[in-house]
Amino acid sequence: MKVLILSQVSRSRICAIPDIDDFYWEKAPTPLLDMVETPIHLKNLSLKDLKRLADEIRAEITFVLSKTCRHFKPSLGVVELTIAIHYVFHAPMDKILWDVGEQTYAHKILTGRRPRLHTLRQKNGLSGFTSRFESEYDPFGAAHGCNSVSAGLGMAAARDLKGKKDRIVTVISNWTTMAGQIYEAMSNAGYLDPNMVVILNDSRHSLQMKPEEGSKMAINALSSTLSKIQSSRSFRKFREAAKGVTKRIGRGMHEIAAKVDEYARGMMGPLGSTLFEELGLYYIGPVAGHNIDDLICVLQEVASLESTGPVLVHVITEEECESKDSKKNEIVSKQPEPRNLSTLINHPVVLGNGFSRTYMDFFVDALLVEAERDKNIVVVHAGMGMDPAFSHFQARFQDRFFDVGLAEQHAVTFSAGLSCAGMKPFCVIPSSLLQRAYDQVVQDVDMQRMPVRFVITSAGLVGSDGPTYCGAFDITMMSCLPNMIVMAPSNEADLIHMIATAAAVNDCPICFRYPRRHVFGADLPAGSHGVPIEIGRGSVIAEGKDLALLGYGVMVQNCLKARTLLLDLGIVATVADARFCKPLDMDLVRHLCQAHPLLITVEEGSIGGFASHVAQFIALDGLLDNGNFKWRPIVLPDNYIEHASPKEQLSMAGLTAHHIAATALSLLGRTRDALQLMH
Amino acid sequence: MKVLILSQVSRSRICAIPDIDDFYWEKAPTPLLDMVETPIHLKNLSLKDLKRLADEIRAEITFVLSKTCRHFKPSLGVVELTIAIHYVFHAPMDKILWDVGEQTYAHKILTGRRPRLHTLRQKNGLSGFTSRFESEYDPFGAAHGCNSVSAGLGMAAARDLKGKKDRIVTVISNWTTMAGQIYEAMSNAGYLDPNMVVILNDSRHSLQMKPEEGSKMAINALSSTLSKIQSSRSFRKFREAAKGVTKRIGRGMHEIAAKVDEYARGMMGPLGSTLFEELGLYYIGPVAGHNIDDLICVLQEVASLESTGPVLVHVITEEECESKDSKKNEIVSKQPEPRNLSTLINHPVVLGNGFSRTYMDFFVDALLVEAERDKNIVVVHAGMGMDPAFSHFQARFQDRFFDVGLAEQHAVTFSAGLSCAGMKPFCVIPSSLLQRAYDQVVQDVDMQRMPVRFVITSAGLVGSDGPTYCGAFDITMMSCLPNMIVMAPSNEADLIHMIATAAAVNDCPICFRYPRRHVFGADLPAGSHGVPIEIGRGSVIAEGKDLALLGYGVMVQNCLKARTLLLDLGIVATVADARFCKPLDMDLVRHLCQAHPLLITVEEGSIGGFASHVAQFIALDGLLDNGNFKWRPIVLPDNYIEHASPKEQLSMAGLTAHHIAATALSLLGRTRDALQLMH
Repeated sequence: MKVLILSQVSRSRICAIPDIDDFYWEKAPTPLLDMVETPIHLKNLSLKDLKRLADEIRAEITFVLSKTCRHFKPSLGVVELTIAIHYVFHAPMDKILWDVGEQTYAHKILTGRRPRLHTLRQKNGLSGFTSRFESEYDPFGAAHGCNSVSAGLGMAAARDLKGKKDRIVTVISNWTTMAGQIYEAMSNAGYLDPNMVVILNDSRHSLQMKPEEGSKMAINALSSTLSKIQSSRSFRKFREAAKGVTKRIGRGMHEIAAKVDEYARGMMGPLGSTLFEELGLYYIGPVAGHNIDDLICVLQEVASLESTGPVLVHVITEEECESKDSKKNEIVSKQPEPRNLSTLINHPVVLGNGFSRTYMDFFVDALLVEAERDKNIVVVHAGMGMDPAFSHFQARFQDRFFDVGLAEQHAVTFSAGLSCAGMKPFCVIPSSLLQRAYDQVVQDVDMQRMPVRFVITSAGLVGSDGPTYCGAFDITMMSCLPNMIVMAPSNEADLIHMIATAAAVNDCPICFRYPRRHVFGADLPAGSHGVPIEIGRGSVIAEGKDLALLGYGVMVQNCLKARTLLLDLGIVATVADARFCKPLDMDLVRHLCQAHPLLITVEEGSIGGFASHVAQFIALDGLLDNGNFKWRPIVLPDNYIEHASPKEQLSMAGLTAHHIAATALSLLGRTRDALQLMH
Repeated sequence: MKVLILSQVSRSRICAIPDIDDFYWEKAPTPLLDMVETPIHLKNLSLKDLKRLADEIRAEITFVLSKTCRHFKPSLGVVELTIAIHYVFHAPMDKILWDVGEQTYAHKILTGRRPRLHTLRQKNGLSGFTSRFESEYDPFGAAHGCNSVSAGLGMAAARDLKGKKDRIVTVISNWTTMAGQIYEAMSNAGYLDPNMVVILNDSRHSLQMKPEEGSKMAINALSSTLSKIQSSRSFRKFREAAKGVTKRIGRGMHEIAAKVDEYARGMMGPLGSTLFEELGLYYIGPVAGHNIDDLICVLQEVASLESTGPVLVHVITEEECESKDSKKNEIVSKQPEPRNLSTLINHPVVLGNGFSRTYMDFFVDALLVEAERDKNIVVVHAGMGMDPAFSHFQARFQDRFFDVGLAEQHAVTFSAGLSCAGMKPFCVIPSSLLQRAYDQVVQDVDMQRMPVRFVITSAGLVGSDGPTYCGAFDITMMSCLPNMIVMAPSNEADLIHMIATAAAVNDCPICFRYPRRHVFGADLPAGSHGVPIEIGRGSVIAEGKDLALLGYGVMVQNCLKARTLLLDLGIVATVADARFCKPLDMDLVRHLCQAHPLLITVEEGSIGGFASHVAQFIALDGLLDNGNFKWRPIVLPDNYIEHASPKEQLSMAGLTAHHIAATALSLLGRTRDALQLMH
């Protein structure tokens, strides 16, 4: 049995992450970690033991999560930081807030959740984020990743009002600093001036880039500033020097800390530190994030201060990012060749593989085709810019691809500006993150009738990302806007047509949504591109007489499956694809109401969306007044659906074909059949 | 006839604003302005004439707007800046973007809209904001005030893609720099690096404060930084020096501009300029904003540059803020005495005057009473902190009042943090601005069941502020959230009870909304405070049999008036007050459906809100299946309602008592009566 002795490997590298591919991987012994159940067990360990503990935690995370969880590596880079924080501060009395879920796995291990780590992001298992419902060591939920300074400042203000003495530590990441809320919060922290510690975990590797690509990949000015600090030769010199200085820190902190601070600034020039100081935070750093000695020394001094106001500790970490890790290289370094556009979408090979491809793949390929035909098409992306699907677009149209980082508010108004000047922006934002820019959608786009095309990704349930990235509210929040066209494709072929439609509509805003899941394998349009569809026109897909199922978006597929289930029981359902929530296809809805005793609308979205638009129309049109006609809505249930597999979530939400068919059966008076179907 | 010679007054002051109270005010002659219809007419005026023109414009604005428009003064402070911009740049080819509507009146005058200035903010008149629908000189709508850099950057990026050469100028205000989007946008501008000019109009008086209060009133760190620059003695020295330097600027701009820049920084130390430079903008300033010579000189040089990347010109202006202006002093300088709390609300004098008081007045008074009883109650305010109603609360509980400035995202998460630590935050945000923090409401409050109390002000139509501040979407966006309690008082007495209710509910988030309008004059609760009401319980206010009117919020009052109209025609309507949109009072709704042939729901909100919750419940409950029962929703229409008086807007929206009664009549088959009622 081959057992890896981690401490030997670690000496040669900053991060001791074993390469999981080049040996038969078994669990390394973790004698120290086995003794640590809560942070209190750390307090008596020696520095040497803490370093070994870091290696053991990394091995544990890698062993437990490498098979089941794709994004565990951000946690590997903050193991020393996590240990140092828990060594110095006293959670749960002191509050430790994180703003990136993927960086909290070491924190979970150290706070009593090690036995359940293997259940991470699975049904009934640990959340991929921090959660107040999960542990008293999680004082706040790390959600969309820019909230922790605001929340920590609230806790600090409350503490001071109540005359308490607990410490507040928030860990932010270099890439969440792209979001405006961080500035709002830091600026307010500088003004209110309570004691709190903001730790900036500055890991350029979080963006899945190779180190030398750092400066190129920087998305905004601040991230290039941080990159410059890291890459400057003087940083390494500083690290050596700082070691000596921080060791000497004892009492008389103010002078020495000031000297450390000055030291850093002297080395780095006016970059980096000043921005935070402008905002009112006292800057300390940069501190080498894998040096437990330095981390503990700096944090102990910061923790011992009585009244400093907010302090920013700038910590440089390196996420594991080995050249041997073939999967990552594949994503990052291979600049893809532009595909042969004429055969891009409709090629039989692609079609043959279609079932394993996602809606996002189809979206990017089809948009490439449109962009080739229309030079005004540009993409504004407010994600991480790292979605591999986009690499083809970037490679082909580099100057027509704008990744603005985690700055959704800016992304939306920036798109509005582009459209003012004649471009055709496709603004790509996941449903739940579009919530961050709702006001910009209302004021800067819809109210001004700007032809911005919103591409709402991750619509509906998102599996292991749980409620945090669940796209439940987009239909509701977009379809109440007066000028917005709101549509959803029921399959990948319709998606391609809707891209063409969005490109063609140039006098008002338009949006469409698609889920994170794989496509169904529809027949794709002949030729290499989509054809604009008529605005506000849905279609009947299958004729019936006993009831009508009206699906919105991919739920049409579940309606079709429900139809099959019902057919076996002798019931013939009409299935229609609404395509548009707004403008609603009134002729289609009227037909469905008049020709059937029962209409069931089905959508993967919250109350207030498609069903509400149907309800209002059929009420005002008098269709509901008919005593021989029933309407029932099926929407997402009124609760947050926890992480689980997509299939499990759809079942928890009551949106499977079986649920739809059972609802129909019970409304048609066949309760026994309905019960049988669900068992 | 007393005619003011403005140029004489102006010499003694920076801003030549005549005091409107101490003489009989007649229109001063405006010989220069009379010749300027579009910006092109400025181009040949001498500097001396431009200065006289500035005085004339100020006189014009004051004369035309002082009687009808409360917030015209911000425009007085930017008259020279507006002239300088239009003198140097060539609108509409060059794009001039503003982000504060109240600062654009000089711009409106200079761009052909002078003849209609007297119609400002009135029905069919000029908008109080910039508007693409109003003028080709308005390339973007100044809406909630932090969007112009994002929009301008989009235009600049599009321009560069198209190989055009027009210039982009955005004017931002010191107080919109509190919003995170500005940072997102500037940071992205620094990265994309297109030519564009961002003018920071830094006027501390915009916040309606006395000059010496500037530093106290600074809400975040940046605004104090800017204050420090302004108040530093060296600024005045710099102004003198800069005059000399800027005069010499000719060709060889790079060197001299660099020198000006260095000069400024040398004087000011590391404050102010560095923040913008960190974000990637080239900083020039501060420039005296009432010195047309300097402004034109600097802007001409900036405009002539071929490739600078984004430039920030920091301009210091002084808004007219005279000590003689008694109205302003009344608002600002009088720190109000805390009222006698025991008699605060229910005092007969207050009751007698009730009809002229607003919901906001009642809210603040009642919250004061609650805060006196419960020391955990705190207020988080994301407005301007200048609502006079709040001065009582601030005076009494200074350390329990947090004004975070125009930073709604932070305000919401900050409130969540406060509630984590045992406080009871009342987070006060106007409905339309809550859109800016929707994601924080979802992720940081609702998903974590944080007991934050949202006080949604300016709900529904807002009169002359038009669609920009119309609170149309809050019911829709709040009531789709699983954990949120959503309620609305129908009058000021219920508002007082709902404050007590919100204070009492401590296990989930809760919100209530009220309009900007005056109260109706309800009987107030006995004693000095409200009593928590049962969650999810509405009430029948007036019994009837012919139909039921179910109102949400203040629309209950219109339902009651409609009942009176119907009574005259022999129809007896039940009127019920829903109180809760969520949880809905199912017993009440069921009763109304079963006991009446017709139910009309009425709300001052968009589709997807209260009506949708009623529809879903009565559909799922089978109540809609009854052929002898009809349901009709009355909601805000599916368009943006332009500025007009509140009464006119309610009529345009179809939400008056007459509209409700006419709808009922026509559904009861009495179409003729319905038509008569509407004429």
